[in-house]
Amino acid sequence: MNLLLLDDADFVGADRAILRDRRLRHLREVHRAEAGDSLRVGRLGGAMGEGRLLRLEAAEAELQVVFDRPPPAKLPLTLLLALPRPKMLKRVLQTVAAMGVPRLVLLNSYRVEKSFWQTPFLEAQAIREQLLLGLEQARDTVLPEVLVEKRFKPFVEDHLPQLAAGTLGLLGHPGDYPPCPRAVERPVTLAIGPEGGWIPYEVDKLQAAGLAPVQLGERILRVETAVTALLARLF
Amino acid sequence: MNLLLLDDADFVGADRAILRDRRLRHLREVHRAEAGDSLRVGRLGGAMGEGRLLRLEAAEAELQVVFDRPPPAKLPLTLLLALPRPKMLKRVLQTVAAMGVPRLVLLNSYRVEKSFWQTPFLEAQAIREQLLLGLEQARDTVLPEVLVEKRFKPFVEDHLPQLAAGTLGLLGHPGDYPPCPRAVERPVTLAIGPEGGWIPYEVDKLQAAGLAPVQLGERILRVETAVTALLARLF
Repeated sequence: MNLLLLDDADFVGADRAILRDRRLRHLREVHRAEAGDSLRVGRLGGAMGEGRLLRLEAAEAELQVVFDRPPPAKLPLTLLLALPRPKMLKRVLQTVAAMGVPRLVLLNSYRVEKSFWQTPFLEAQAIREQLLLGLEQARDTVLPEVLVEKRFKPFVEDHLPQLAAGTLGLLGHPGDYPPCPRAVERPVTLAIGPEGGWIPYEVDKLQAAGLAPVQLGERILRVETAVTALLARLF
Repeated sequence: MNLLLLDDADFVGADRAILRDRRLRHLREVHRAEAGDSLRVGRLGGAMGEGRLLRLEAAEAELQVVFDRPPPAKLPLTLLLALPRPKMLKRVLQTVAAMGVPRLVLLNSYRVEKSFWQTPFLEAQAIREQLLLGLEQARDTVLPEVLVEKRFKPFVEDHLPQLAAGTLGLLGHPGDYPPCPRAVERPVTLAIGPEGGWIPYEVDKLQAAGLAPVQLGERILRVETAVTALLARLF
């Protein structure tokens, strides 16, 4: 936790906040914080700054906070991701939030196992928890928007063309395609497939919606690693 | 497992191998393979090709194999990494093998907790297991060399200058430094710090050994994410 994220419910005054949950335990047990310590704070969806611990007790902590700087910029990106397996989903959500992705679409694909859609990690509260961990890691305050699209065809046919309009549309796919471009200067719509890749029908549909296939070399990377590698190369 | 890795002990003839362990279970339970199936195989440290399952039984499988192509090229890189916490170490070893890092040095740093050096995941067999998972994921056959250096100063003073000689020496460090370069065309020696970063003394020592600080932006990434992001940007 490199940033203590506060939300409206934590505030008891314009510059005072009270903590009682996981964040309090983390301050006590991991940071071994003490009254008087200063720490980096952010207001969820808002600015960042410094907090001073006025008191730190077993049941609650009180902070005085000053917000004086904006959160880091997001990437100009919409990321489409075939729904990963539940354990990977948790890590990918953290990575997506940490890397500064503002909008994530979790999409069905032929090679997404149907059981993956049953995971409790897809519930809004569970998604939010993982995103918050990513924001705390990277020091950001703005939650990414996460859309869950269980039907590939209607999404790709009816919504993706507008989403991708005016952006550089890319589709990460192994094969004889151009390498993923570097240091692009414009907004990107990027689709990353499931383990085993998109099937040809899906590649055709994504291309028809405006995404061009690009590859990252012959090594097959786990989804989380592929997401990081593609974003680091693009931006 | 995108590649079935065979080692010398698996072979019962020039083109015949017998499997009995984790790989057999994986073929049966995850791939649901059947006799007659073809799959990608690699010889540990050697070439890659195709294997045909002659028989697949509960206790063993027999394969006929043909090797006809080289493994993918490694990155021209020596990666120095402050020893991560044990759980992260496992994942980083997989990532390093998957991304094609040929040589990894696990190094001490002031901010590495002493207890991390006690983990069983640092035993040679445990390191090898994680590296094999990375090779199987990415389809590579050549194990990275992993050096474990528990003493920062003697390594950085006495060995690092020769290791880094003739390479582009870089030190990932947050702060007011140039951004990490992109698409470099020469061998690189890259050092990545612990959670919380290198201390100033360590930065000085690493610079004296020939590494120049570079940064990746204001977001603080987990070690595994930082490794992937830096490598994707450099190569």
